[in-house]
Amino acid sequence: MSDQKPFIGEVTFHVRYAETDAMGIVHHGSYIIYFEEGRSNYIRQRGSSYAEFERTGYYLTVSEVNVRYLRPARYDQRLTVRCRVSEAKSRQITFSYEVVDAENGDVFATGSSKHICITQDGQVARIPDLWRAWVG
Amino acid sequence: MSDQKPFIGEVTFHVRYAETDAMGIVHHGSYIIYFEEGRSNYIRQRGSSYAEFERTGYYLTVSEVNVRYLRPARYDQRLTVRCRVSEAKSRQITFSYEVVDAENGDVFATGSSKHICITQDGQVARIPDLWRAWVG
Amino acid sequence: MSDQKPFIGEVTFHVRYAETDAMGIVHHGSYIIYFEEGRSNYIRQRGSSYAEFERTGYYLTVSEVNVRYLRPARYDQRLTVRCRVSEAKSRQITFSYEVVDAENGDVFATGSSKHICITQDGQVARIPDLWRAWVG
Amino acid sequence: MSDQKPFIGEVTFHVRYAETDAMGIVHHGSYIIYFEEGRSNYIRQRGSSYAEFERTGYYLTVSEVNVRYLRPARYDQRLTVRCRVSEAKSRQITFSYEVVDAENGDVFATGSSKHICITQDGQVARIPDLWRAWVG
Repeated sequence: MSDQKPFIGEVTFHVRYAETDAMGIVHHGSYIIYFEEGRSNYIRQRGSSYAEFERTGYYLTVSEVNVRYLRPARYDQRLTVRCRVSEAKSRQITFSYEVVDAENGDVFATGSSKHICITQDGQVARIPDLWRAWVG
Repeated sequence: MSDQKPFIGEVTFHVRYAETDAMGIVHHGSYIIYFEEGRSNYIRQRGSSYAEFERTGYYLTVSEVNVRYLRPARYDQRLTVRCRVSEAKSRQITFSYEVVDAENGDVFATGSSKHICITQDGQVARIPDLWRAWVG
Repeated sequence: MSDQKPFIGEVTFHVRYAETDAMGIVHHGSYIIYFEEGRSNYIRQRGSSYAEFERTGYYLTVSEVNVRYLRPARYDQRLTVRCRVSEAKSRQITFSYEVVDAENGDVFATGSSKHICITQDGQVARIPDLWRAWVG
Repeated sequence: MSDQKPFIGEVTFHVRYAETDAMGIVHHGSYIIYFEEGRSNYIRQRGSSYAEFERTGYYLTVSEVNVRYLRPARYDQRLTVRCRVSEAKSRQITFSYEVVDAENGDVFATGSSKHICITQDGQVARIPDLWRAWVG
C-alpha cells in the first residue's frame, strides 16, 4: 500500500517569441510543447532518459491530450512546468501537468496526456521493468 | 426548431516535413495546428473571416483543447480536416474536428476546442450578431 | 547546351494563426517552413515525391538557408511560394524561393537553401540518376 | 578606439522532441528559434529586456537570416547558443550565433540575423539611446 506523494518534476524556462501569436500571447498549441518539455524533464529528474528509452526500441506514443487554458502567458515570462504520473498501467501511462508563472505561481494552463508503449514496428507492448523506476 | 444537419467545413493539405518528429510520424502537437486550420477554413467556407472578426475588436480565445490520436500520419500524406460547430452559446463556441486520410478516409485524430469571445482588453463578451452567420 | 527556362513550382495556401507572432505578423521562422512546402511541392509537380526519395534510403540534408524579408505577411493572407532549382551538382542541390502575395504579387520574402545528398548512415552520396528528373 | 572583446551571451537548454523531424534529427527550422532564444538571452544578460523594448513602442524586425548547418543535433541533447552583436548601426543591428554541443563544444550550426528598428506603425527609426547599452 502506497501513501507516498507522487514525484513532481519541475522545469523553468522563458517563453520564446516564436511561441506567441498575433493575439500577443502564447499560442495555445505551444502548451503541448511545454507539456512535452515537462515530461522529458520529469524522466530526467527521475534519473532516466526518454532518449535512452527509445534507443532500447520502445516508444511512448501519445493517444490523448487535454489542455485547459486559464490565463494568457506572454513573451519572455518565466514559466514553470510541473509534471507527474497520474496513472500507470502495464502498457499505458498518463502524465498530468500544470504550467505556472515562475514568479507568482499563477496558473496558465493545466492538462494531461495519455501514452501507450509500443515497439518500433508499432505493436503495443508492456513497459519494460527496466523503465518502471520513473513510472509512478 | 432545427432539424438541420450542421455545416461541415473541409480542407485538404499535405503534411509538411517540419510537422513530423523523430518517431517518423506527425508530431502530436501538429494536430492542434491542423484543427486551427480546419477552424479558419470553416469560417471562410461560411462566407466570413476570422481575420475580419479580429479587426472588429473581438477574439475567440481558446479555453480548452482535447485530442484523441488513432493512427499515425506521415510526411507528404494528404490530410482532410473536417470541422463543425458542436455547441454555440452567447459567449462561447465549441468546434469539433476529424483529421482523416484524404485518400481513404482513415481517421488519424479527432478532437474539440472550446472558445470564449473576448474584447481586446480581455473582457468576456457576447459574440456580436454580425458573426452569428457562421456560429451554429 | 540548355537554353531552357528552369521549371518553377508554385503552391498557394493561407497563413495559419500559429505561424504569426506577437508583432501581429508571420514569424520569420515560418518562412523556412514555407520554403520547405515550396520544395515538397516542386518535387511533386515534377512528377516525383521526396517521401519516395527517402524510402529509397537517401536524404537531402540541409547545409545552408538564407532568407531576406521584404514586407510582413499576416494571418489568413494567401501566399504563393515559387520554387526552382538554382544549382545542381552531383551531390548537392540549391533551391531558390519567392514567397509572394497570391492576390497582388507583392513579395514577402526571398531566399535559398542548399542540400547535400546523404545515405541513411550519413555518408555523402551522388544523387541517384533515378531522381535526376526533378533536379535541374 | 575600442579594443574590447564583444560581449557573448550564452544560454543552454535541451532539444525538445517537437523540434526534431522524421530524419531523426533537429529540423533545420528549429535553429531559427534557437538563434532567437540566444538573442533574447543576450539582451537579458546585458541587463535589459526585449519585452521591455517593445513596450516602449519599438520593434527589431528581422530583415535577413542566414544559417549554416554543420552536424545534426538530436532529441534531449544539451545545446548552448552563443550570441553576440556583430554590427551595430543607428537603425540596424546584426547578431551572430553559434549553436554548440554543451558537453563537448561540437558546432551544430552558425549564422546571423539582421534587424531593423521600427516603430509600431512600421516606420524605420533610430534605436533609442536608452537601449544602446546592449547594442554593441
